[in-house]
Amino acid sequence: MQTLDKIADLRRDLDTARGQGLRIGLVPTMGFFHEGHVSLIEAAVHDCDFVVTTIFVNPLQFSVGEDLDAYPRDAEGDAALAAGAGCDLLFVPLPGEMYPSGSESVLTSVSLGPLAETMEGRSRPTHFAGVATVVTKLFFLIGECSAYFGEKDYQQLAVIRQMARDLSAPVNVVGCPVIREPDGLAMSTRNVYLSVEERDVAPVLNRALSHGAVMISDGERDAERVRTAMAALIDEAPVGTLDYVEVADPGTLEHQSVCSGESRLFGAVQFGRARLIDNISASDVSGDDDFTRKEVTAGNER
Amino acid sequence: MQTLDKIADLRRDLDTARGQGLRIGLVPTMGFFHEGHVSLIEAAVHDCDFVVTTIFVNPLQFSVGEDLDAYPRDAEGDAALAAGAGCDLLFVPLPGEMYPSGSESVLTSVSLGPLAETMEGRSRPTHFAGVATVVTKLFFLIGECSAYFGEKDYQQLAVIRQMARDLSAPVNVVGCPVIREPDGLAMSTRNVYLSVEERDVAPVLNRALSHGAVMISDGERDAERVRTAMAALIDEAPVGTLDYVEVADPGTLEHQSVCSGESRLFGAVQFGRARLIDNISASDVSGDDDFTRKEVTAGNER
Repeated sequence: MQTLDKIADLRRDLDTARGQGLRIGLVPTMGFFHEGHVSLIEAAVHDCDFVVTTIFVNPLQFSVGEDLDAYPRDAEGDAALAAGAGCDLLFVPLPGEMYPSGSESVLTSVSLGPLAETMEGRSRPTHFAGVATVVTKLFFLIGECSAYFGEKDYQQLAVIRQMARDLSAPVNVVGCPVIREPDGLAMSTRNVYLSVEERDVAPVLNRALSHGAVMISDGERDAERVRTAMAALIDEAPVGTLDYVEVADPGTLEHQSVCSGESRLFGAVQFGRARLIDNISASDVSGDDDFTRKEVTAGNER
Repeated sequence: MQTLDKIADLRRDLDTARGQGLRIGLVPTMGFFHEGHVSLIEAAVHDCDFVVTTIFVNPLQFSVGEDLDAYPRDAEGDAALAAGAGCDLLFVPLPGEMYPSGSESVLTSVSLGPLAETMEGRSRPTHFAGVATVVTKLFFLIGECSAYFGEKDYQQLAVIRQMARDLSAPVNVVGCPVIREPDGLAMSTRNVYLSVEERDVAPVLNRALSHGAVMISDGERDAERVRTAMAALIDEAPVGTLDYVEVADPGTLEHQSVCSGESRLFGAVQFGRARLIDNISASDVSGDDDFTRKEVTAGNER
């Protein structure tokens, strides 16, 4: 695996790969890899002939007061995991390579309207414009490819799919399933911020969503009742502050009054320094149903 | 010259051309060609091996009440002029090909901040986002190329240059000089809207800008005095309503207090149905100086 930090070198290597007829795969990341990232690289390696993983902690998608400077980094560990997963080229540009005059001098902003204004967009108003802008730039830099994004950031995936479609980017956007710890916690770089107690409690977010899915599977169609039940579970946890839970259309992400097995369930909870998000399909009613039901019952009895 | 209306066919022909090592030129237009358009195609033919001209009257860049439906069209005349100028491929998609679910379902918007908020952006608040969005889409559709735009729409050119730079579009953006009628009127599709009287008076816009350039060439450094003099000339014309005149930095388009030979002079005037714009460099002091000076003197004596 080659590691590059210059756009000109990246373009040259991509030209060579294309000249050999290789299908290009792209895995855009902010680094500090866990099994979720590895699964994206493996999916790209499975489908494509030449896989580029990018690591860039993009200032445009952080607001003042967010964790841009604290965002964890591990260049060596990332390189080892990427190489192990079969990545061909690791592109790790410095901010000055991506934004030669500084990110504050980037005047162009790619925004997504209503899709970016709900949920994460309400909590982080400039976030998705920052994401869509840098991903548009990566799509121009890489050119025709398949690009792999995790469903953990489901709204981000929806934003990028819509952007690629609206702008006719020559990119096949592929969503990959959430990778979870054994107790259900979605893997996230930000999990490193959790204290021991917070880590112990954090799976409540996934359990609350699973409970919502079970309610819908059991016939509940009133989305507000599902939201209320999910919020109650999170509120009852000894640590963590609920940001939102949502039951939404899986395509438009619109808030639903009436839910169905197609609905998508979302949640965001602040645990100390870590703001964690998760989502599942209402049809993701796993073999843990009984466990989930029991947990929920226990929760309600508190 | 081949004429295509499907994106898939366009991409196939571009792949073939690239496979042959041809350098691609792009001339994005809204059709109804005049000598200005022809000059862009000729410039592309001069520099490139395979020239694509696109004709698409882009709904995103028109506001309600503007001339989208009335915008003049001449498919046959355009094809003849494009072929005559050496164009290889004319791409004329219907709106449904560019926006399969309707332009109102395009959620993605490429905006340019301050560069798009002055002058034309103040008069037409959503215009440049519409332009930047469709041009981003064209850049994705065409891929690596040189793209030719007229300096008549100088602010549009600045917006597109900045967008291409910010998003790392693999596009060399080339600006081409304004093409004018013998009396100085900048060629524009919208000139067809002019009545005989309005056509007679319309060159006052260019004369006013030229007068501003002469003032600066003669040593004037107070930009407000230049603006006042240019506005006075336009106000004195028997028809036409001044929208704005501006003396601005040629790169940032920022309003200037102190001008120089580097300054750019801009103006917009409504003549009946036709909203005309023009711009020149303060250094564009042509051989017509004496004529301009005389005209100006005559104007002031009215």
